[in-house]
Amino acid sequence: MIPHLTATHAGLLQELESRVLVKSTEIEHWFRGQWQKHTPPFYASVDLRNSGFKVAPVDTNLFPGGFNNLNPAFQGLCVQAVSSTIDRTCPNASNLLLIPENHTRNPFYMQNIARLVTIFRQAGLNVRIGSLLPTITEPTKVEVPGHPPLVLEPLVRSGQRIGVKDFEPCLVVVNNDMSAGIPEILRGLDDSIVVPPLHAGWTVRRKSNHFTAYDQVAAEFAKLLAIDPWLVNPYHAHCGQVSFHERAGEECLAANVGEMLDQIRAKYLEYGIKDDPFVVVKADVGTYGMGIMMAKSVDDVVGLNRKQRNKMAVVKEGLEVHDVIIQEGVHTHERIDGAVGEPVVYMIDRHVVGGFYRVHTGRGIDENLNAPGMHFVPIAFNDCCIQPDFSAKPDAEANRFYAYGIIARLALVAAALELEQTAPAT
Amino acid sequence: MIPHLTATHAGLLQELESRVLVKSTEIEHWFRGQWQKHTPPFYASVDLRNSGFKVAPVDTNLFPGGFNNLNPAFQGLCVQAVSSTIDRTCPNASNLLLIPENHTRNPFYMQNIARLVTIFRQAGLNVRIGSLLPTITEPTKVEVPGHPPLVLEPLVRSGQRIGVKDFEPCLVVVNNDMSAGIPEILRGLDDSIVVPPLHAGWTVRRKSNHFTAYDQVAAEFAKLLAIDPWLVNPYHAHCGQVSFHERAGEECLAANVGEMLDQIRAKYLEYGIKDDPFVVVKADVGTYGMGIMMAKSVDDVVGLNRKQRNKMAVVKEGLEVHDVIIQEGVHTHERIDGAVGEPVVYMIDRHVVGGFYRVHTGRGIDENLNAPGMHFVPIAFNDCCIQPDFSAKPDAEANRFYAYGIIARLALVAAALELEQTAPAT
Repeated sequence: MIPHLTATHAGLLQELESRVLVKSTEIEHWFRGQWQKHTPPFYASVDLRNSGFKVAPVDTNLFPGGFNNLNPAFQGLCVQAVSSTIDRTCPNASNLLLIPENHTRNPFYMQNIARLVTIFRQAGLNVRIGSLLPTITEPTKVEVPGHPPLVLEPLVRSGQRIGVKDFEPCLVVVNNDMSAGIPEILRGLDDSIVVPPLHAGWTVRRKSNHFTAYDQVAAEFAKLLAIDPWLVNPYHAHCGQVSFHERAGEECLAANVGEMLDQIRAKYLEYGIKDDPFVVVKADVGTYGMGIMMAKSVDDVVGLNRKQRNKMAVVKEGLEVHDVIIQEGVHTHERIDGAVGEPVVYMIDRHVVGGFYRVHTGRGIDENLNAPGMHFVPIAFNDCCIQPDFSAKPDAEANRFYAYGIIARLALVAAALELEQTAPAT
Repeated sequence: MIPHLTATHAGLLQELESRVLVKSTEIEHWFRGQWQKHTPPFYASVDLRNSGFKVAPVDTNLFPGGFNNLNPAFQGLCVQAVSSTIDRTCPNASNLLLIPENHTRNPFYMQNIARLVTIFRQAGLNVRIGSLLPTITEPTKVEVPGHPPLVLEPLVRSGQRIGVKDFEPCLVVVNNDMSAGIPEILRGLDDSIVVPPLHAGWTVRRKSNHFTAYDQVAAEFAKLLAIDPWLVNPYHAHCGQVSFHERAGEECLAANVGEMLDQIRAKYLEYGIKDDPFVVVKADVGTYGMGIMMAKSVDDVVGLNRKQRNKMAVVKEGLEVHDVIIQEGVHTHERIDGAVGEPVVYMIDRHVVGGFYRVHTGRGIDENLNAPGMHFVPIAFNDCCIQPDFSAKPDAEANRFYAYGIIARLALVAAALELEQTAPAT
């Protein structure tokens, strides 16, 4: 299933898709060079937007939580990717400890964990699940729809090592974004065995760092393809010292929103695009679509009422928002049965392993679909994103998904740069 | 589609399959260890036999010619495996030269080449095809059913490098088993870029070396699983200085066939197997099912008539047979619609990437299906062989294919050992 694309701007997109196809050898060669210089994150998912004239990442998750939404037909790609990673990074490892989020009552999230456990086991690893939940004081069975029950165990710290009872892992895979801070029990570990590294969590991570790194990656990529980097890169800006509760930082917000809307308007004029420009203001920290708003004019971000301010002030785990990122809004022009669909691409190590559409019937093209409490319908890609069809048109299904995989991998390179740049001094 | 297995000996096989499943972590860990010590061949296919009481490799092809028979649904596994290999072995490579067999008029073989070309291109490589055919003196289009035409080009030698016009490859992938000897144009190359190495061709290669290496691998594996190595390893013996034309070497053949039939009988007695033992006598060199015969008694190999001797005396490319391997016959107890089915597993680097059944309706369970001129029907596996189902029975489809993948990988390790042991002194 491939969504229909609103046809208005198909020309520009086809130009991008066709450049990607023609230059695929150079692109893959360039990626290989990147992975010689930089270490890819253990895994990642990237939310893309396809406006029909640009395809761009809008969020990169280093603790991806939707493996359950991937097409089971391509699970072998996950297994092979994990095997390759283990072969290379810790060939002597067999014991893997998985540290999940504390959402044990979210059946979808637990299905994600079950899928990860299956992938790791199929790759030949012993997997145990260590929970950060204080209520888990002994091995506890959790039912998972469609899967055998999972057993959560209390984490056991011993010197610089972490494990569960009678189980010393060679590899600790974190699937918890640490929005609440780095848990005490994970501090001061021999971190050579923890992936992703702890500074990939939201205690340290900033979206603005990610997109600053992405600017560099997108510029190099655009040069390679001889295209305008804007076609794969949304504008972004940053405001610090913001407090929505205290109405602080409003000037920075207003100035940046105004300037960015002007920049977008200029680009739209250049390319003859008739859409309404908009920007997205998001907390620089955190995930799950909290602390996020759209703005089509400066007026949308000044003089917010109490309800709006409350909504922006706090994100996941009650974290107060002090920094925001202002990002160019990319319209979502993909439709599945009339509903808006946003592609999410999944990667393990350097390999694209599939993806899915986040489909929401009740939202407009310029609204964020990953909103709190929202119930999106995931529709798995029918394509694994790594098999371009050179004899088909650039916008054929296989080629569009291949392009998605490439843009997602650009964000993956940016994440690698970001993690290098933000690594704590040792 | 999974063939039905004649139920007689299912108990023994289930024991093997269940050991494989229980020990999968140890097995994968053991393989990782092997690949730290040994370099896997670039690619390989392994012919397996499943007798219902043992699963064993009977032939390992280092120039696999049936990629066209693999399930297209799993082609992503091939693409990812090639990408990983290129990442690791020659990250700076983009130009790949493929040297095929000279069977340009065999549409199935050319489909194999077309599939390989597609896989390499999807992995981001520039691919050109260099032909050893003296009749190819300029770029020549060859039609391939179901694929865009391929272009064969004359090879161009320049110093220690080989290429085609205006194309210097970083990697030369050989898909020609060199039964006719190492072509002059490939001698004295900078062989660091040629895969598989030239001594993997039948000029140097001997089946008996492969199965001697396999003895060692199977013994280690059997120890790991605490099983009788015979359950994964057919007996084999070797006779040199054989000449079927001159009736030389008959005594060696008779002695070995007699002794092996006794050994098999003893094993059948031990396990209560009621099948008729048989052995297979094959040329130690070569492929394509030429120079091959079955024997159920010593009488079958002495006093051969002229027709039988002629059939055994010469293999592919007119090569005369001087060495033979005598191999325990493994009955084929897998049936698809009443026809005998032989599994063939494909691998790229260390990764299993799928396989197919070679199905022949006109042959018995103890006959070789890979015979000259035979028209087998390939039926692609519906399973990628790397996704065991730990919650299903050991003989469930996913688990049987997983076991096949493991036995095939044992043969892959043996091939790696064999290539090390037979490498020319440098």
